[in-house]
Amino acid sequence: MPQAKAYSVASATSPFESDTIPRREPTATDVAIEILYCGICHSDLHQARDEWHDAMPTVYPCVPGHEIVGKVTAIGSEVTKFKVGDTVGVGCLVDSDHTCPNCKNNLEQLCPNMVLTYNFPDRHGTAPVTYGGYSESIVVDEKMVLRIPDNLELSATAPLLCAGITTYSPLKRGGVGPGKKVGVVGLGGLGHMGVKLAKAMGAHVAVFTTSPSKSDDAKRLGADEVVLSKDPAQMDAQAGTFDFILDCVSAKHDINAYLNLLGADGELCLVGAPSEPLEVNAFTLLMARRKLSGSLIGGIAETQEMLDFCGQHNVTADVEVIPIQQLNAAYERLEKSDVKYRFSIDMASIKGA
Amino acid sequence: MPQAKAYSVASATSPFESDTIPRREPTATDVAIEILYCGICHSDLHQARDEWHDAMPTVYPCVPGHEIVGKVTAIGSEVTKFKVGDTVGVGCLVDSDHTCPNCKNNLEQLCPNMVLTYNFPDRHGTAPVTYGGYSESIVVDEKMVLRIPDNLELSATAPLLCAGITTYSPLKRGGVGPGKKVGVVGLGGLGHMGVKLAKAMGAHVAVFTTSPSKSDDAKRLGADEVVLSKDPAQMDAQAGTFDFILDCVSAKHDINAYLNLLGADGELCLVGAPSEPLEVNAFTLLMARRKLSGSLIGGIAETQEMLDFCGQHNVTADVEVIPIQQLNAAYERLEKSDVKYRFSIDMASIKGA
Repeated sequence: MPQAKAYSVASATSPFESDTIPRREPTATDVAIEILYCGICHSDLHQARDEWHDAMPTVYPCVPGHEIVGKVTAIGSEVTKFKVGDTVGVGCLVDSDHTCPNCKNNLEQLCPNMVLTYNFPDRHGTAPVTYGGYSESIVVDEKMVLRIPDNLELSATAPLLCAGITTYSPLKRGGVGPGKKVGVVGLGGLGHMGVKLAKAMGAHVAVFTTSPSKSDDAKRLGADEVVLSKDPAQMDAQAGTFDFILDCVSAKHDINAYLNLLGADGELCLVGAPSEPLEVNAFTLLMARRKLSGSLIGGIAETQEMLDFCGQHNVTADVEVIPIQQLNAAYERLEKSDVKYRFSIDMASIKGA
Repeated sequence: MPQAKAYSVASATSPFESDTIPRREPTATDVAIEILYCGICHSDLHQARDEWHDAMPTVYPCVPGHEIVGKVTAIGSEVTKFKVGDTVGVGCLVDSDHTCPNCKNNLEQLCPNMVLTYNFPDRHGTAPVTYGGYSESIVVDEKMVLRIPDNLELSATAPLLCAGITTYSPLKRGGVGPGKKVGVVGLGGLGHMGVKLAKAMGAHVAVFTTSPSKSDDAKRLGADEVVLSKDPAQMDAQAGTFDFILDCVSAKHDINAYLNLLGADGELCLVGAPSEPLEVNAFTLLMARRKLSGSLIGGIAETQEMLDFCGQHNVTADVEVIPIQQLNAAYERLEKSDVKYRFSIDMASIKGA
């Protein structure tokens, strides 16, 4: 079995260390990829530290990473979509059953038999679980591999594979475009992509923040206005005016304050997942036929559509590029939300590891 | 000013008593209506007893009633939609501004300047507030008057004007039809209309109930299956299978138990309005892109569409017809949900009052 360099954690409290992991030989439908950049998603941290123990207990060693861009180095005999040398991406999914109603509906992310990119039982038997993108290479079935537009800077493109599709999908399905007023709550890895994408879609974009210091940055990212969510007068002035609000906050917060800002038939979509229940006022929903929804990444076709959209509009993430040797320090900063707005690992650094 | 017989309450704790109220002479665009039947909606009880004091304090004397059917007895000089003798209906709204974006979108029920059928400032100055349908007559602008299909039995048609449109609108907008699986929670005045309408739309309909005794009645109303919501095994067996759930419960309840029954992109719509906040699990929404929404009656055009649909499919409410002299006894029973499924006042009884 071929081996690949990777960075793994050995337990919930261990630091990342240099490791080697097995990667299968490409099957007939597989694409082998040399990883160039991998974004660091907050989910990586949750999984590495076993913070989702009840829902998805972590199997160690754990190699996270599902915001992957790289170059095709080999293809199986039946591969038709890619050739050696192509620039490609891999996101949160490396397989699904392709036969269930959700898959037939291009919703592989809702397939009951999907395989996540890391910490998921490996159907190929290469290892007990799948290993993600904190590695020099990965082997993935071509159905789950994305094409990266030529014009995009690759280190800043990696986060599109999770943060990009997570925000693009609800904005697109929510009808965001010219003439629509869109709010983004929470200016982090997801929120900053939400601002850029909603703006590129042609909407009027408002960012809600608890901190006046984020105002300039929100505008630089494309926000037309910034609303201080702690100021009742500013919030009241926006009541009933929004078509769509993208809520990227993972902590418990007052959802009714934002629902109240939606106009008739407006939608607030959660992409962050607070672990405590959200208290929803039924009258606030009824009185203007408002909707509270949730969204989870996107299917493969929609992820390709998002990448193509980003190519056309030259949208990428704001990244801090780090060598993989700085992974532990990056995690400490990520935990404090001290990153603008996504870490992207330059995987060339692993060659000397 | 012409006077009309009516039944009113003089305070939150008073019984209904025979009364006379002013009704304006028809203006150029008004229709004068002899009321034949008026349904008793639970909102009537809330308003009569001032149970919505903070949001909509009751002005006494109060004459409720917004499920009105009757005959046109006179029309203004500019009325074009109706003629004397027509069978017509009036629902929850007797006016709106007809110029705001919601009105232009046929959403008069969301107009900031709408006028409710009772207990709302009367713009014509006839009385301090509007008086509803517990009366021998009413005068309404033709824009807000509905046409009643010829084939419908009128006592059972009155409840369509509120309970009918309240349930029709979300079912229709939710895409309910053949091949869809629809749940109805709460088998009362709203719920029993939800079952009949979803069935008439061609869906597979399941009723959720806490009481096995309601099973036969649910099936008689058109339910294809009945699920005991207190039985975890029955609920688990339905997980992820519903396209749409209409939630007609006004008391606090476990909304996540029902959200969890929705499949990908499924919607749960609240038409009952629990006064306490509903605790919503964000993960339950995210993991299948589920939606929690609210809906509030419907616009005038949609209400006409609903009535025409009911005419085509011969759908009316299950009613207990009472003379107006039994109003106080009916309210006592309504408070205990002891009615199958709507009281309808035979307004001929008021002539001798």
